[in-house]
Amino acid sequence: MGRPDGRAPDELRPVTLTRRWSMHPEGSVLVEFGATRVLCTASVTEGVPRWRKGSGLGWVTSEYSMLPRATTTRSDRESVKGRVGGRTHEISRLIGRSLRACIDLKALGENSIVLDCDVLQADGGTRTAAITGAYVALHDAVTWMAKRGLLAGKPADAVHRSVAAVSVGVIDGQPRLDLCYDEDVAAEVDMNIVCTGAGDFVEVQGTGESGVFDRAQLDALLDLGVAGCAQLADLQKAALA
Amino acid sequence: MGRPDGRAPDELRPVTLTRRWSMHPEGSVLVEFGATRVLCTASVTEGVPRWRKGSGLGWVTSEYSMLPRATTTRSDRESVKGRVGGRTHEISRLIGRSLRACIDLKALGENSIVLDCDVLQADGGTRTAAITGAYVALHDAVTWMAKRGLLAGKPADAVHRSVAAVSVGVIDGQPRLDLCYDEDVAAEVDMNIVCTGAGDFVEVQGTGESGVFDRAQLDALLDLGVAGCAQLADLQKAALA
Amino acid sequence: MGRPDGRAPDELRPVTLTRRWSMHPEGSVLVEFGATRVLCTASVTEGVPRWRKGSGLGWVTSEYSMLPRATTTRSDRESVKGRVGGRTHEISRLIGRSLRACIDLKALGENSIVLDCDVLQADGGTRTAAITGAYVALHDAVTWMAKRGLLAGKPADAVHRSVAAVSVGVIDGQPRLDLCYDEDVAAEVDMNIVCTGAGDFVEVQGTGESGVFDRAQLDALLDLGVAGCAQLADLQKAALA
Amino acid sequence: MGRPDGRAPDELRPVTLTRRWSMHPEGSVLVEFGATRVLCTASVTEGVPRWRKGSGLGWVTSEYSMLPRATTTRSDRESVKGRVGGRTHEISRLIGRSLRACIDLKALGENSIVLDCDVLQADGGTRTAAITGAYVALHDAVTWMAKRGLLAGKPADAVHRSVAAVSVGVIDGQPRLDLCYDEDVAAEVDMNIVCTGAGDFVEVQGTGESGVFDRAQLDALLDLGVAGCAQLADLQKAALA
Amino acid sequence: MGRPDGRAPDELRPVTLTRRWSMHPEGSVLVEFGATRVLCTASVTEGVPRWRKGSGLGWVTSEYSMLPRATTTRSDRESVKGRVGGRTHEISRLIGRSLRACIDLKALGENSIVLDCDVLQADGGTRTAAITGAYVALHDAVTWMAKRGLLAGKPADAVHRSVAAVSVGVIDGQPRLDLCYDEDVAAEVDMNIVCTGAGDFVEVQGTGESGVFDRAQLDALLDLGVAGCAQLADLQKAALA
Amino acid sequence: MGRPDGRAPDELRPVTLTRRWSMHPEGSVLVEFGATRVLCTASVTEGVPRWRKGSGLGWVTSEYSMLPRATTTRSDRESVKGRVGGRTHEISRLIGRSLRACIDLKALGENSIVLDCDVLQADGGTRTAAITGAYVALHDAVTWMAKRGLLAGKPADAVHRSVAAVSVGVIDGQPRLDLCYDEDVAAEVDMNIVCTGAGDFVEVQGTGESGVFDRAQLDALLDLGVAGCAQLADLQKAALA
Repeated sequence: MGRPDGRAPDELRPVTLTRRWSMHPEGSVLVEFGATRVLCTASVTEGVPRWRKGSGLGWVTSEYSMLPRATTTRSDRESVKGRVGGRTHEISRLIGRSLRACIDLKALGENSIVLDCDVLQADGGTRTAAITGAYVALHDAVTWMAKRGLLAGKPADAVHRSVAAVSVGVIDGQPRLDLCYDEDVAAEVDMNIVCTGAGDFVEVQGTGESGVFDRAQLDALLDLGVAGCAQLADLQKAALA
Repeated sequence: MGRPDGRAPDELRPVTLTRRWSMHPEGSVLVEFGATRVLCTASVTEGVPRWRKGSGLGWVTSEYSMLPRATTTRSDRESVKGRVGGRTHEISRLIGRSLRACIDLKALGENSIVLDCDVLQADGGTRTAAITGAYVALHDAVTWMAKRGLLAGKPADAVHRSVAAVSVGVIDGQPRLDLCYDEDVAAEVDMNIVCTGAGDFVEVQGTGESGVFDRAQLDALLDLGVAGCAQLADLQKAALA
Repeated sequence: MGRPDGRAPDELRPVTLTRRWSMHPEGSVLVEFGATRVLCTASVTEGVPRWRKGSGLGWVTSEYSMLPRATTTRSDRESVKGRVGGRTHEISRLIGRSLRACIDLKALGENSIVLDCDVLQADGGTRTAAITGAYVALHDAVTWMAKRGLLAGKPADAVHRSVAAVSVGVIDGQPRLDLCYDEDVAAEVDMNIVCTGAGDFVEVQGTGESGVFDRAQLDALLDLGVAGCAQLADLQKAALA
Repeated sequence: MGRPDGRAPDELRPVTLTRRWSMHPEGSVLVEFGATRVLCTASVTEGVPRWRKGSGLGWVTSEYSMLPRATTTRSDRESVKGRVGGRTHEISRLIGRSLRACIDLKALGENSIVLDCDVLQADGGTRTAAITGAYVALHDAVTWMAKRGLLAGKPADAVHRSVAAVSVGVIDGQPRLDLCYDEDVAAEVDMNIVCTGAGDFVEVQGTGESGVFDRAQLDALLDLGVAGCAQLADLQKAALA
Repeated sequence: MGRPDGRAPDELRPVTLTRRWSMHPEGSVLVEFGATRVLCTASVTEGVPRWRKGSGLGWVTSEYSMLPRATTTRSDRESVKGRVGGRTHEISRLIGRSLRACIDLKALGENSIVLDCDVLQADGGTRTAAITGAYVALHDAVTWMAKRGLLAGKPADAVHRSVAAVSVGVIDGQPRLDLCYDEDVAAEVDMNIVCTGAGDFVEVQGTGESGVFDRAQLDALLDLGVAGCAQLADLQKAALA
Repeated sequence: MGRPDGRAPDELRPVTLTRRWSMHPEGSVLVEFGATRVLCTASVTEGVPRWRKGSGLGWVTSEYSMLPRATTTRSDRESVKGRVGGRTHEISRLIGRSLRACIDLKALGENSIVLDCDVLQADGGTRTAAITGAYVALHDAVTWMAKRGLLAGKPADAVHRSVAAVSVGVIDGQPRLDLCYDEDVAAEVDMNIVCTGAGDFVEVQGTGESGVFDRAQLDALLDLGVAGCAQLADLQKAALA
C-alpha cells in the first residue's frame, strides 16, 4: 500500500517558500507543502498588549484562518458565524507558542509582531506549513525592524534559532512523514512535531485518532519528524540566504 | 498632475484573470487590477436558503473579505471582533446583486452558488475587481454544473449576459478610470459602475467623498466607466475562451 | 396603469416635517413621506471617536433602525439576533455620509452629533425620508450648540448647504418619483438620489433590481430625482423658518 | 415638598391610550403616562416556539426596548453592542408574564402574539405604561384573530380579565403614585404593581433603592397601587369601547 | 396534601453555611438549602467601574450562574450560546441590589467586591440561597479588607446590617415557606422575600405564576417570609461567630 | 530544591474520586488532585449532532470551564464576555478526544453523552484531573444506560478500556510528576500525557514553555507520565469497584 503520490514514507512533499509574496507586510511568505498553500505575513506594530506594558518586552502572536473554500467543501466564515472556532483557536495558539520559542522578546522592545497565517488551499499539514513559513516571515520582519533602528542588537541575536514543523502519522501500521489530506483522514495516529534548527523539540503533539499508540510507534514518529524538520530547516536557511 | 503610475486618465491598470487558481472550488479565479489581487471562488451547493425553498429557483450570493494584512496597515479580523463590519456587508451585497443580474436562477434549479471574494492584496478598486473576477468564476461553476447534469439548459442560457465593474473618480478636477489606492483617497468624487457586456447598467453608485458633483461631472464619469467595463468584458471573454 | 394612490409620476407623497417631536434630544424631527414615518433625533455629545482625537474636527454619524413591526410582517430585533444586518449597516452609512456633506466639521470643534433614524412605520423610501428629516434635526442641534457657545462661527456657516433625498424608479417602463412600498417591490430599476439645496449631487445609487437599465432611463431618473429634491429642500426651508 | 408637576400624592399623570397608532400591526397602541410615551404593538404569527409544539396552546411574549434618545442622555443601541442588557431582559420578561395572566392560551390555538413595547420618550414608569398599553393592543389583536376565525371561542373568553400596571414609591417619606423620572431617581422605595381589573395582584415588585422599608410602608404603597390600577382599568375599558 | 419532604408549611429545609469552602477567594461560602447547593465567593478587586471613578465610593456586584447539569436535564452553557440569558441577568441584578443594601459603599473606598454565585446543584430557591450565602461571603471579604487596612472604619460599620432571603409560595391554596423544585413548579403564586436581620424588607417580588393573588394571600406570604428570614439571620450570625 | 509540598519527583498528589457528588446527572464525580478540584458530570441525551444522524453511532463530547474564582485572581466569565476563549476550547477538545478513545460509539446507539468538567478550585493540572474524573463519570453513565436498556451489549464492552491523564514537567532541570500551580508556572517543559489502563498512549502534548527540550528529557517525562497514569488507573478501578 504506497502513498497517494508515490512518495517514500520518510519523504517530504515538494516545499517552496516564496518571500515577499505580498507588498504591504513587513514579512510575507507563501509557503507550499505540495498542494497545501498558506500565506504567512508578519506585521510589526508599535506597542504591546495591556498586560505586558512597562515590561520592556515585545510580543509575538499568531492568527490562523482558512479561506472558506480552501477545502474540498465550503466552510462557513467564522466572521459570519460571529465566533472563532475551537480548532482555529488551538492552531493559532500553537503557532504563536512555537514562534515565540525562536525569538528574544527583549530585543523587540515594546513592539508586537502578528503572524497571520491564512490557508489559501488545504491538503493536509496546514498548521505545520504555517509554522515553517511564519518563521521566514518573522525573520524578514525582524530584519525590517533592524533597518529602521527598532531592534536592540542584531537580527541574528533577536531570532536566535530557527523553527520548523511537520506532521507525521501512522497509516496502515506504517509511520509516514508529512501527511497529505487523504493520509491525515486515514491515520491511526497523528502527530505534529515542531523542532529548532538544532534538532531540539519546541512542541510535540500526538493523538491516537482512531486508537492508541505504544512507545515504539511514538519513537518511530519522533525519528521521522526530527529528520523532516531538519530538511525544512535547510530549506528555510536557503530561502533566507 | 499626472497619475501615480503614468497612465492616461481613461486607461485601465494591467488586468489579469487567472482561472483555476485553486483546485477545490467549482470555479476559481485570481483577478488582478494592477497590485490589487482578489481570489474569487464559486462554490456550488445543493439546496437554497429556507425562504426560497419550493420556489424551483436557485440562489447566488457573495461574501467579500480582506486578509488582515492585505492593506498598508493591519486590520483586525472580523472573526476575532465577532462581527462583520458595515463596509464588508455593503460590498458583499453589491457583488451578490451584480452577479444575480447575469444569471437565470431558474436554470440552476434549487441549488446555490456562493461567490467568495477574498482580497489578498489591496490597492484600490477591490470591489470592482471582485465583481469582474467573480463573473468568470461563476461562469466556470455553471459549466461544471452543466457537465454533471445539474443545469436546466445550456450554460450560455443560464449565464445570459456578462457583468464587469470598474471604479471611476474625479481627482484634481480630472475624471479618471480605475483608481489605485492613492487616487481613491484623494478623489473628490468616487463612483463604482457595474455594466453588462452589452453596455447596460447593472448598478451605479456615486459618492461625493469630499464635496458634491454636478450633472456634467456625473456624465463624464459614466462615459469613462462604460468604456472601462467594455474593455473588461473583452478580457473576460478572452479568459473564458 | 396609474400609481396606487393616484399620484402623477413626478409627484411626491404628502411630506411633513414635525420639529421637536420628542423632548430630550438637541434636535428631533418626525418626518413623514405618506405613510412612511421616521423619527430622526440629533444627539450632541462631547468628544469624538478615538481615531479623530486631536484633529480639532467634530464628527457626524448616523444609526438607522426599524421597529420590529414597522413593516407588514414582524422582523426580529437586531439586538436579539446579536448583530446588525447588512441592510441596516448600509443605510446607516449612507445617511452619515450624506449629512457630513452639509456640515463644516471644523465648526463643531471636537464634538459629535449622532443622528438616530428610527422607522416607526414603513411604506417605502425610509432611507430617503430619514436623510431629509435628519437634515432638519441636525440643523436644530447645531443651533442648540450655537446658543451654548459650543460652535465656532454661525449656524449658517456650520451647516453650509441643505441636503435632501428621494427615491425614484422605473415601474412598467415608467419613471416615477418617491416610490411607496408596493411600487418599490415592483420596480425594475430603483434609485436613491441625494442632492443639496443648490441641486448638486451628494450621492447617486441606482440598481437594476430585476434587470438592467440604459443611459436614457438613467437620465430620466436623475431628472425626476433632482426635481423631487428641490421640492424637499423648499419644505425643509419652510420647516426651519 | 410637593410633586414636580403639582399632582396630589395619589394622582396619576394624564394617561392616553391611542389605538391603531400604526397601520401594519394586528394591534397597536401609543400609550402616554405624562411625558412617557410607549408604542405597543401586537403581532400575530402562526405557530409557537419549538418547546411548545403539539401542546395545542398558543404563546404570548414581549420585547421591550428604548430608542437610544428616549432618555435625557443618549444610550448605545443594544443591536450595536451585540447583546440585550439585563434591565431590558428583566422588563421584557415582566411584561410577558403580566400579559399571559389575562389570556387563555388555549383559545389562541398554536399561534403566537408578540407584544413589542418600544419607548419613544421616557419620563419614568415606562414598564408599567408598557403593560397598560400592551393589554389594549393584545385585546385588539385577539379581536382581529376572532374576525379571521383563528380564535377558539369569543374574544371576551380569550382575554378573560384586564391587566394594568403602575409604579409607586416613597419620596421624602411620602408614598406617591405614578412616579415621573425625577421622583423615580429620588425614591427611597420603588415598587411596580400589576393588577387585574378585578383588583387582584398579578405581580408585585418592591425594592428599597436606597434603604429598606417596613410593613406599614409596604401596605401604604400597595393601597396606592391598587387604586391607581383601578383607574387605569377604567381608562382601558373606555379606550376599547 | 403534605409537602414532598414532610415539612410543616412554615418550616425551612435544613440549611448549612460552610465558610472557606474554597481557598483562593477573600470570602467563600457553600450554602445549602436542602439539596440546593450554591457556591458563593466574594472577590475583592482594586478600583471601581468607570462610571464610578472619582466618587470615593466602592461597588458591590454579583454574577449568578448555573452549572449545566445542576438541574434535572442539562442546559446549554451561556458561554457557548454567546449570551447571558434573561433569567440569569435578572437574578444577578437581584443579588447585587440585595447585598448593596447591607453595606456602606463609602467604607470600601474605591474598591469592588464581586459576588459570584454558582449553582452546583439546584432544587428550588437558588436565588434566595445565593443571597443568604453571599452575605456571609461578603462579610468575610470585608473582614479580610479590614485586616489589610483597606477598609475605612470597622467591619461592623461597613456591613451595617445582615441580609437573607427565602422563597414562599401558595400550593393547593396553602402558603408554604422555602419551596423545593417540585413545589416551585406547582405553585400558583411564587414570591421571593429579602429581609434584613432587623426584619425590614429589602426586596419583595411576587408573581402569580398560574393565576392571580389577593391581599390576604399576599399578607400570609409576607408573614411566612419574614419569619423564615429571621431564622436565616440567626443561622448567618452563628456561622460568622 | 525540593517540591513545594515535599513530594518525591515521581509522586502524585493525594487523589480522590468521589462518585455521585451531585444528584441529577447520570454520572457525577468530584475529582481532587491535591487542591485542584473538578466536578465532572456525564449527561446522557437522546440523539446525536446533525452531522452524525443516521450513522447508528453515538457521540461523546466535553465542555471544560472554570468558575471565575477558581483561581488566585478572578477571571471574567466567558458567558459575560460572550465568547469561549482559546484555552477553554483547546482543553474541551482534548478531554472529548481522550474519552472517545475508551468508548465504543456503536454501543451507545444514536445517543450522546456530554462530559461537563467544571473547575471549582484550581491548583495546576486541571485538564488532566478532568480527564481522570470524567472517565469515572462516563463509566457510571454507561452503566445507567445499560440498566435502562439503552446500551447495545455490556458496559464493559462499551467502555472497553480506561483512560487517565497526568501532567509532567521539568523544573530546575528535574523531571517531575503531577505539577501544582507554582511548579506549572516555573516549568521549562510542560507535558500532558493521556494513557489507557494498559499503558498505551492516547494523547501526548509537550511544550517547551520557556525553552526547548531534547530527546532524553522527553523520554524521562514519558516514563514519569506512564507510571503516574498507571497509578491513576488503579485509583479509578478502586473507585468503580
